[in-house]
Amino acid sequence: METPPSSAGNLSLNPRIVKDILVAFIRDGMKNSGFQTGILGLSGGIDSSLAAYLAVDALGKEHVLGVLMPYQTSNPQSRTDAESVARELGIRTEVVDISTIVDLHLERVGKGDKVRGGNIMARERMIILYDLSSKERGLVIGTSNKTETLLGYGTLFGDMACALNPLGDLYKTQVWQLAEFVGVPRKIIEKEPSADLWEGQSDEGELGFSYREVDRLLYAMVDERNSEEELVKMGFQKEFVLKVRERIRKNQFKRRPPLVPKVSNRTINIDFRYARDWGI
Amino acid sequence: METPPSSAGNLSLNPRIVKDILVAFIRDGMKNSGFQTGILGLSGGIDSSLAAYLAVDALGKEHVLGVLMPYQTSNPQSRTDAESVARELGIRTEVVDISTIVDLHLERVGKGDKVRGGNIMARERMIILYDLSSKERGLVIGTSNKTETLLGYGTLFGDMACALNPLGDLYKTQVWQLAEFVGVPRKIIEKEPSADLWEGQSDEGELGFSYREVDRLLYAMVDERNSEEELVKMGFQKEFVLKVRERIRKNQFKRRPPLVPKVSNRTINIDFRYARDWGI
Repeated sequence: METPPSSAGNLSLNPRIVKDILVAFIRDGMKNSGFQTGILGLSGGIDSSLAAYLAVDALGKEHVLGVLMPYQTSNPQSRTDAESVARELGIRTEVVDISTIVDLHLERVGKGDKVRGGNIMARERMIILYDLSSKERGLVIGTSNKTETLLGYGTLFGDMACALNPLGDLYKTQVWQLAEFVGVPRKIIEKEPSADLWEGQSDEGELGFSYREVDRLLYAMVDERNSEEELVKMGFQKEFVLKVRERIRKNQFKRRPPLVPKVSNRTINIDFRYARDWGI
Repeated sequence: METPPSSAGNLSLNPRIVKDILVAFIRDGMKNSGFQTGILGLSGGIDSSLAAYLAVDALGKEHVLGVLMPYQTSNPQSRTDAESVARELGIRTEVVDISTIVDLHLERVGKGDKVRGGNIMARERMIILYDLSSKERGLVIGTSNKTETLLGYGTLFGDMACALNPLGDLYKTQVWQLAEFVGVPRKIIEKEPSADLWEGQSDEGELGFSYREVDRLLYAMVDERNSEEELVKMGFQKEFVLKVRERIRKNQFKRRPPLVPKVSNRTINIDFRYARDWGI
């Protein structure tokens, strides 16, 4: 596809200011919760590495636990990279291999369906992180960015499950910028993004477009609120626009609480809808 | 404690009207999603039994799958009751024993911490229900009522995870009324409520108060918006009021999406906040 004009892609951020906002967000969110410890799944990828750097800045290295949860087909490089981030930051780590548990599920499901298998892995990791958050009296810090959350490229109640999501308002392109600024190792920034749920998986291969392309479109569509016609005039291909818009809409259920039918005076999440940290 | 005056406890509902609303809610929610099948965890308890009766009314018995997920310490009566509901309704069932998988987690966690073990069981059941929803192209129908959702007496990303939650605006006292009206077997209505996560567990024993008591208080506090002083004047004991209010507040995080720090023009769940079924 053609490169859209730069006006559509003003994704550059001021990393110093954004870093300060995200660090304060983690610090305040933790303080309001009454807890002290951040629990993070470390995959060796850029998102969880960046989240770990921010968490250490906010909470101190003694208050961050990095959890490595390899599956037998995980790329060994993922673990090496996760360990190098933990060592660099000086944080505690815990390793929980999910292979046996996941394979018990796969005996029932079969190995043929990669999406079902991938969701099971992501949800088993959620169970471990939330169990550790209970044991350690900590909060799970999420690692989902705005690009994947809008596209629904994540597992509901799996990797999307968290208490605080510091990267949730950053596009992948911005995650790269911020990661560079905070000093995430260059080899982690430069490697091909992958959920590493099966061998050879790459995000961009699976999505069918690059993050840089889709981020420019998402910014123009969501943040700048350009219409389909305007997006096409800006140089985005119509099929690409429609495909991405459809993904955003179809995945709205992953971003909102369950539906409840209103039959009382005050219904949870309809008129009983305080902020998440109202009570803490 | 004293029985509060009846003005505080107007929990009676018109079961015919409410039933119609909940059935239409399930039917419309399913239709909007483009799916046809409701997937329900059947525990043998009153909530999931009532949800199954409503789902069959809304979708037809051929479009409801009841999933039984016993653990080795589950009361055998739970399974018998769940099977009798499925037989009565004529729905398909699937049985997935979670013992081996849960015990693999417990090897790491230890068996001493009942709450951690209970959360693991609830979340393993979520994994199975969501996996089946993917296999069957269906929606998970939740079974959480308003009492337990307000009190936070449920597992986040476990039994609280669903697409449609038909009972979410009914107090337990109202669940009893509606269950009777739709014909849930009397022995299920009358048995002692229990999450059956460990032997001898009873909801009311664990909570430290009865559902009838707390429902009257919740109704007066949440639906009627009476202040602490007013509640005490109405005859509720002050410690009970404070304890319940504290539970509601502390568990708000279970009812809302993760927190995201705003750094862009449009932030998910802040200013990008369409309805859950907007896109479908």
